[in-house]
Amino acid sequence: MTNDLRIGVVGAGLMGADHITRITDRISGAVVSAVVEPDQARADAAASNAPGAASYARIEDAIQDGGVDAVLIAVPGQFHEPVLLPALDAGLPILCEKPLTQDSTSSWRVLEAEQKLDKPHIQVGFMRRFDREYAALRELVESGDSGELMMLRCAHRNPAVPDSYNQKMLINDSVVHEFDVVPWLAGSPIKTVEVKYPRRNSLSPEHLREPILVIMELENGVLVDVEMNVSVQFGYQVATEAVFEKGLARIGQPAGLQTWRDGRFSISDHMSFTTRFAQAYDDQIQRWVNAVRGGTLVDGPNAWDGYLVALACEAGVQALDGGVVPVDAPARPDFYA
Amino acid sequence: MTNDLRIGVVGAGLMGADHITRITDRISGAVVSAVVEPDQARADAAASNAPGAASYARIEDAIQDGGVDAVLIAVPGQFHEPVLLPALDAGLPILCEKPLTQDSTSSWRVLEAEQKLDKPHIQVGFMRRFDREYAALRELVESGDSGELMMLRCAHRNPAVPDSYNQKMLINDSVVHEFDVVPWLAGSPIKTVEVKYPRRNSLSPEHLREPILVIMELENGVLVDVEMNVSVQFGYQVATEAVFEKGLARIGQPAGLQTWRDGRFSISDHMSFTTRFAQAYDDQIQRWVNAVRGGTLVDGPNAWDGYLVALACEAGVQALDGGVVPVDAPARPDFYA
Amino acid sequence: MTNDLRIGVVGAGLMGADHITRITDRISGAVVSAVVEPDQARADAAASNAPGAASYARIEDAIQDGGVDAVLIAVPGQFHEPVLLPALDAGLPILCEKPLTQDSTSSWRVLEAEQKLDKPHIQVGFMRRFDREYAALRELVESGDSGELMMLRCAHRNPAVPDSYNQKMLINDSVVHEFDVVPWLAGSPIKTVEVKYPRRNSLSPEHLREPILVIMELENGVLVDVEMNVSVQFGYQVATEAVFEKGLARIGQPAGLQTWRDGRFSISDHMSFTTRFAQAYDDQIQRWVNAVRGGTLVDGPNAWDGYLVALACEAGVQALDGGVVPVDAPARPDFYA
Amino acid sequence: MTNDLRIGVVGAGLMGADHITRITDRISGAVVSAVVEPDQARADAAASNAPGAASYARIEDAIQDGGVDAVLIAVPGQFHEPVLLPALDAGLPILCEKPLTQDSTSSWRVLEAEQKLDKPHIQVGFMRRFDREYAALRELVESGDSGELMMLRCAHRNPAVPDSYNQKMLINDSVVHEFDVVPWLAGSPIKTVEVKYPRRNSLSPEHLREPILVIMELENGVLVDVEMNVSVQFGYQVATEAVFEKGLARIGQPAGLQTWRDGRFSISDHMSFTTRFAQAYDDQIQRWVNAVRGGTLVDGPNAWDGYLVALACEAGVQALDGGVVPVDAPARPDFYA
Repeated sequence: MTNDLRIGVVGAGLMGADHITRITDRISGAVVSAVVEPDQARADAAASNAPGAASYARIEDAIQDGGVDAVLIAVPGQFHEPVLLPALDAGLPILCEKPLTQDSTSSWRVLEAEQKLDKPHIQVGFMRRFDREYAALRELVESGDSGELMMLRCAHRNPAVPDSYNQKMLINDSVVHEFDVVPWLAGSPIKTVEVKYPRRNSLSPEHLREPILVIMELENGVLVDVEMNVSVQFGYQVATEAVFEKGLARIGQPAGLQTWRDGRFSISDHMSFTTRFAQAYDDQIQRWVNAVRGGTLVDGPNAWDGYLVALACEAGVQALDGGVVPVDAPARPDFYA
Repeated sequence: MTNDLRIGVVGAGLMGADHITRITDRISGAVVSAVVEPDQARADAAASNAPGAASYARIEDAIQDGGVDAVLIAVPGQFHEPVLLPALDAGLPILCEKPLTQDSTSSWRVLEAEQKLDKPHIQVGFMRRFDREYAALRELVESGDSGELMMLRCAHRNPAVPDSYNQKMLINDSVVHEFDVVPWLAGSPIKTVEVKYPRRNSLSPEHLREPILVIMELENGVLVDVEMNVSVQFGYQVATEAVFEKGLARIGQPAGLQTWRDGRFSISDHMSFTTRFAQAYDDQIQRWVNAVRGGTLVDGPNAWDGYLVALACEAGVQALDGGVVPVDAPARPDFYA
Repeated sequence: MTNDLRIGVVGAGLMGADHITRITDRISGAVVSAVVEPDQARADAAASNAPGAASYARIEDAIQDGGVDAVLIAVPGQFHEPVLLPALDAGLPILCEKPLTQDSTSSWRVLEAEQKLDKPHIQVGFMRRFDREYAALRELVESGDSGELMMLRCAHRNPAVPDSYNQKMLINDSVVHEFDVVPWLAGSPIKTVEVKYPRRNSLSPEHLREPILVIMELENGVLVDVEMNVSVQFGYQVATEAVFEKGLARIGQPAGLQTWRDGRFSISDHMSFTTRFAQAYDDQIQRWVNAVRGGTLVDGPNAWDGYLVALACEAGVQALDGGVVPVDAPARPDFYA
Repeated sequence: MTNDLRIGVVGAGLMGADHITRITDRISGAVVSAVVEPDQARADAAASNAPGAASYARIEDAIQDGGVDAVLIAVPGQFHEPVLLPALDAGLPILCEKPLTQDSTSSWRVLEAEQKLDKPHIQVGFMRRFDREYAALRELVESGDSGELMMLRCAHRNPAVPDSYNQKMLINDSVVHEFDVVPWLAGSPIKTVEVKYPRRNSLSPEHLREPILVIMELENGVLVDVEMNVSVQFGYQVATEAVFEKGLARIGQPAGLQTWRDGRFSISDHMSFTTRFAQAYDDQIQRWVNAVRGGTLVDGPNAWDGYLVALACEAGVQALDGGVVPVDAPARPDFYA
């Protein structure tokens, strides 16, 4: 009872508030002990869902007060490094929402800081790895039961995006998830990235040219095509079809209550990642809490994975302008073995 | 942190052990503070999953020690009354695994004891109400969007049962779930119960005559047929088709990873209630814990519901011998309004 | 080329006109050589789809003219006997739309007339037997691969019926199909029929009390429940779930183009038997034509099957008033072995 | 009766024999009056399924004998031109199995010969256009109900191929179908073709490097990716997912009898094109027969379509060696408008 993990949540926006509610209502062995949020209104709103949590404007103050055992970072990516570095400095375990940082250079600095500790302390919030269907697909790949994996055909579809969403965010905000989960599924890093442009969706914000088709080749020869589509109107979908030598597998298909009305059989689609990945988010936090309490600190993608994703994103952004862009990663430090 | 709900779990068999793990690993705001289990080996095994929990052979001792805020009963049904009565006497909130007690007479005694308190303290563990698809179906019924509900066509299929499973358990152990969830879905109590015998499954234990088809009429005219099948070999299934005036709905259908192999498209079935209802069990406990901590004490089927189910079971057992058997319930006490 | 089967179609209403178009446009080895229809307007309309067909008001005249090799009867059931008897008398092969005749007594007279010939000449138009999924289900039953069949759970749902549709037609016009196809699937005749009344559909014509649940027990112990529902608004459905000792099978489920729109995944339902059973009707006629041309004369349900269905309908109509009604059939004459 | 279309079938191999049986057994208004096949054993075997058909070694002799109203060509592609030219010369309507001829140069010669007639006489046997799901998808595209089409994501999977199947046949024998059906679905011709290589299937014949991913851009901007996979072992699949501005559609998904066995829900896959496209083949022939008898002569892809496919195949074969290869088609002659 007295050893509940005391989590300092940094950022009380949409994502942060969601995590605060999750930890308070559904996660075992953890409490939100601090909310770090300079925006007072947000901080107050979040506090009401985290009874007893202290409120801070800066992470350094929260750390100094000593009431935080671990840190969950839910601010936008460009603000991650200034939170990661002091938290690492204090030796605190961290769950950092994706991306690790805004680019590979800053991610490298974080890796360097982390390597001064005895072991990895950072887990990156690529929650798809905790989705049960993704996990089942990975097991199937590893089992070899259907032969070797040859292709992954992926789709990531959003009903709509705000006007602030720009062309690069197709890569950095959306395809970023595939850059993590595809190598994890296929057991091989990304070798090249290429972008193709289908007919433009006339319902997209004017400044966007989308959908895009992102094609990746992995080191082991697996070919991946990802349809990235952010104005599909009809629903939120994340689906993958895996093509094996002697079988096929598919995840992300319609499920749940089936209804017949007005001459149609139908199943409700998701409209947002919050319902599509509800189970994954819960399991991600619970397993991280368990790992921290158990001393492992990380049970999921680590900072090295986050760094590789940053490299892939840079290749992807470059590929928006054409060409087949290689992803050149240095050798993995033993620290992350 | 210090106000975690301290739960005394009574019974450390299969079900009790499962709940202990659940509370310890996945439930927010609660800990297992006591395990009541006369079998020392079981108690020891359970203790390893509930760090810090005290061990007792009798519920009375656990209560007297003062370390228990609420009680979760997971012993077989015939042992419920001797736990329920002292727990009620101590004014403790209770989550009691189904059934409430072994028959309607003992259930009535429990109701009488409970009515001495200020409000209902007992929740009965009919977990199906917490299954998301069941909940979605109930919403559809209540919305009236498809017109009035006219029929429910249910199936409850187990791969196999142990030799100790007897003919009456078809009703008391298995159909019992439908006796709770059907009136809840349809918004109307059970009026009559009847049993039909299909061709016998030659793979059933010799002393069983099953499957059976249980037909219920509800007070509002809704007709229900339940296929109860405990030796189907091929999987564990709980499914319902709801027939409305202008629509249809179906729950419990195959979901998850889809695979193609050997000339077939396929989806894995469940083989046990533990995976089929995993989400329901978790949500049941979390919502009960939240209700107790919030002072509501009950958020689900209460003791009155449990009593009605006991009456239906008695009618069902009688119906195994033939005839259309009425379920005669007294008026519901205001206490349970 | 010159040996196309010359078919005389009796009745040029909805069903007859449909068969005329089918034979003319899609059936190999047959032509419509005569249309027998007293209503001149109908006869003229039909003639335009059967180039070269002669027109008659009476079957006797068509037979006498000698231009008819076989007869297809598509007038309402009460007018079948007066067509069947002269056609049998002329030794012509016959495909008779269901039912054989309007009752078992008249059906018996037809059987007697047919038995004067060298072999069965009448095939009855229970087209479900020609539906590919029904055929696949029957194969599964016969294979024994899933163990013995124990139950059939059927549904027959129409979007709406005309005001002229009366209570008995629930049995004689609709359940009549199950009375043929269920024994054929299960390999055993019907022993008893019973009717249960669910909540009434308020959208039904005022004089109808429906849906009904028809329960049949077969001689081999298989139990069958049929939901008969004629005002469901949402679509036309004929579906069956077969429960085996170690498996399950289902036919009549949604198929075809899958679409995602407006937050829903959906598949179009049928709205009429004409599309639901299009393939079955075509195959029924083609196989009958082939059988006649090949000298077998019958390739499907025969007059004896039609007689058994008439007996079952009489039991079913009686069961509308309550009780478990036996179906007592005489021994099958060797003529139909 | 006397005006049945007399078809001369050229080629009595697998495909030809299948068409002979189809015309004889299931097609209305047509008979096989001649079989042209130099291999005597094949000719004899085929004759037994086409009673009354004359047998010839050369098309010219069949034409000269005057017993042929129309020609169906089912010999391998490299032998099409020598049959097409004399048949055109005789003014006969022709259904020519795909491809039109073995390359674009010879196809052009056929176009020139055909343009000497009063109107198009050749229909090419791209049967997918007659598949009901393809037709439904095309209707959806044309309706604009889901907005504009943006992408097509296709898969063509064969269980296995014979050793004689070579790398170019991936394009000329298999992707050839997409080259016809994709522009027809999307309402726009192919602009470029590109080929990507996923990880090689180790179960493929040694001389094949497959699967391949073929990427096409259409004139209207629609992007298409086709997974071409000829050693998948697990089944025969032809599937397409269409991505619209505000919706999604999918064809070629599992359908038919659903079974539950051994812990799995499953549906049988096709193992061959003969069952997958059975309905399409039947409808293709019936509609062609009707068109010929009605004087239209062609009701489906014509020789111009066949020529465009030949150009696309040449681009596709070139793309096997790398690069984005343009498909340059001349303007369509008014003759084919």
